[in-house]
Amino acid sequence: MSRQVVLLASHPVGEPKDSDFRIDTQELAELADGQVRVEGQYFSVDPYLRGKMSGRTTYHAGFQVNAPVASFGVGSVIESKHPNYSVGDRVAGEYDWADKFDVDGAKLHKLVPQVSAETALSIVGITGLTAYFGLFEVGRLQEKPEGSTVLISGAAGATGNVVGQIAKIKGYRVVGIAGSDDKTSWLKNDLGFDEVINYKTAGNLFEAIKAACPNGIDLYWDNVGGETYDHALQLLNRFGVVVACGAISSYNAVETELGPRLNWLIITKSLRVQGFIVMDFAAKIPEASGVLLGWLAEGKLKQQIQLYNSEGDIFGIPKAFIKMLSGDNLGKSIVKIK
Amino acid sequence: MSRQVVLLASHPVGEPKDSDFRIDTQELAELADGQVRVEGQYFSVDPYLRGKMSGRTTYHAGFQVNAPVASFGVGSVIESKHPNYSVGDRVAGEYDWADKFDVDGAKLHKLVPQVSAETALSIVGITGLTAYFGLFEVGRLQEKPEGSTVLISGAAGATGNVVGQIAKIKGYRVVGIAGSDDKTSWLKNDLGFDEVINYKTAGNLFEAIKAACPNGIDLYWDNVGGETYDHALQLLNRFGVVVACGAISSYNAVETELGPRLNWLIITKSLRVQGFIVMDFAAKIPEASGVLLGWLAEGKLKQQIQLYNSEGDIFGIPKAFIKMLSGDNLGKSIVKIK
Repeated sequence: MSRQVVLLASHPVGEPKDSDFRIDTQELAELADGQVRVEGQYFSVDPYLRGKMSGRTTYHAGFQVNAPVASFGVGSVIESKHPNYSVGDRVAGEYDWADKFDVDGAKLHKLVPQVSAETALSIVGITGLTAYFGLFEVGRLQEKPEGSTVLISGAAGATGNVVGQIAKIKGYRVVGIAGSDDKTSWLKNDLGFDEVINYKTAGNLFEAIKAACPNGIDLYWDNVGGETYDHALQLLNRFGVVVACGAISSYNAVETELGPRLNWLIITKSLRVQGFIVMDFAAKIPEASGVLLGWLAEGKLKQQIQLYNSEGDIFGIPKAFIKMLSGDNLGKSIVKIK
Repeated sequence: MSRQVVLLASHPVGEPKDSDFRIDTQELAELADGQVRVEGQYFSVDPYLRGKMSGRTTYHAGFQVNAPVASFGVGSVIESKHPNYSVGDRVAGEYDWADKFDVDGAKLHKLVPQVSAETALSIVGITGLTAYFGLFEVGRLQEKPEGSTVLISGAAGATGNVVGQIAKIKGYRVVGIAGSDDKTSWLKNDLGFDEVINYKTAGNLFEAIKAACPNGIDLYWDNVGGETYDHALQLLNRFGVVVACGAISSYNAVETELGPRLNWLIITKSLRVQGFIVMDFAAKIPEASGVLLGWLAEGKLKQQIQLYNSEGDIFGIPKAFIKMLSGDNLGKSIVKIK
């Protein structure tokens, strides 16, 4: 049996392009004991993947040239040598961008029928879990009084909009930053953000943030890095927290950018800047998923999916990824290949 | 009754010089109820004061031109309208650089006879308390296994050497960075640091730190900021912590310096960069002081004082401050004016 898989053709320099990816056909070996063969159906495409494509060494093992690209996905079991899985089971896990892949059953989890593939990849996937753990475990939002201000950059992205919705559920004043009027009006009118700034038309962004946060910032959710981080650092209140989630502004940068050294603000205001990944809180995933699904069922949390239907063409995954990075997306980008 | 006091003559630009300070003679008003009049005897001069002289707004109210400069000091009560204090009591508090000052009694504390002025201003003053709270409350050193690596910049300074000594008491591998061979040999031979780097002669500082920290860094105590911070960020282990204590390298900078944007390392390695001031942990000062005095009495902690005896000349305080900033000091700088 063979499979089609997307390989990294080259480490992207600047914005990724089609030619940074290529399709390969590979023979699949016989399934080993404990393994499961999955047919790929839904793939999550996320900004953090850009970092893994750059070839620089981080905690994430980066993607290698001529090796598969992988992200979170949902698929269907087509063969199983693992006692917990049977043909036809819907499973979620970290998958190669391929129409089929063989995976250790221990690295999968089965979806309950009530949870759609889209929900598995967004609200109870890394998107929702990142928002939840970032706010409650890293930001320790619950320790702060209601009415404190949460500022979110990349607010219309997959994680950003969920962060804002959860912060609203908890009674915070929520200010978002996004890059189009469509996005700002969605965040404000549909999701109930208190203020949203279009950074492309705001003029002086520092002054715009300052005006939108008259009581300063208590928690800054950083999806973008760069100058927005500098502004936030200056406007954070004493004991403020930066939840360091992403650095979209630099993912495509060819050289490390320079910025002002502002760590003296961290000292004088007793600030905390902290990074994390979802798996730091692996033991709490079941509890978090339950809370998130509850909010979704109650209608307190809205799920915004940008679904790309590639009709069997696995090259639709890198295409959707490139489009997502361009900033056109509203909410979570998911590719359905079958 | 009149007093002599050191005023800030101008916000220093670059390195402070004598002409940034001047002496004024002021008449003292009659003491108000609740106030205590103190004769100034010992003054602590510390790098953070440079930040307060710059005129930029931080959490600290900065020093104003033509207003007194102040730091922690020890003196003797010469008049009291506060029930807790009598003439002759030795008291510590935040004092104007002056031969006499009137202060709210609630802002002082009385020294027990066993504690010398030097000890009150170093081991159980902000120096020792900064080291203690930074390591245990911010760095949460106790949660890490023995043998983890603590890197300290400005290691021969007042706080840095105490941080290293406490980390050694707790069983950590301690690596220091300092600016002269006298300092490195003191830290290594007298205080038991495992490795000490002379950054002025080390050549490639990144490689020198890497070689001295073969298992990476678990806690970086940052007294200096700048490139040393960049190096540490790259060498920190997963879940590593930066205790942001000072930014000596930029205190004299006229313009905000630029540095590489490296926050993606904070994200991918789940790092935490956190600032603090001693008063964030005010409630724990008695407990911390007890532990620190215990270590001092047992000989586990050594106190290194650079005492400047100015023989009644209060201008000796700014002179000692300027000298301390120049990097000549070993340990804690204290000025005795009487």
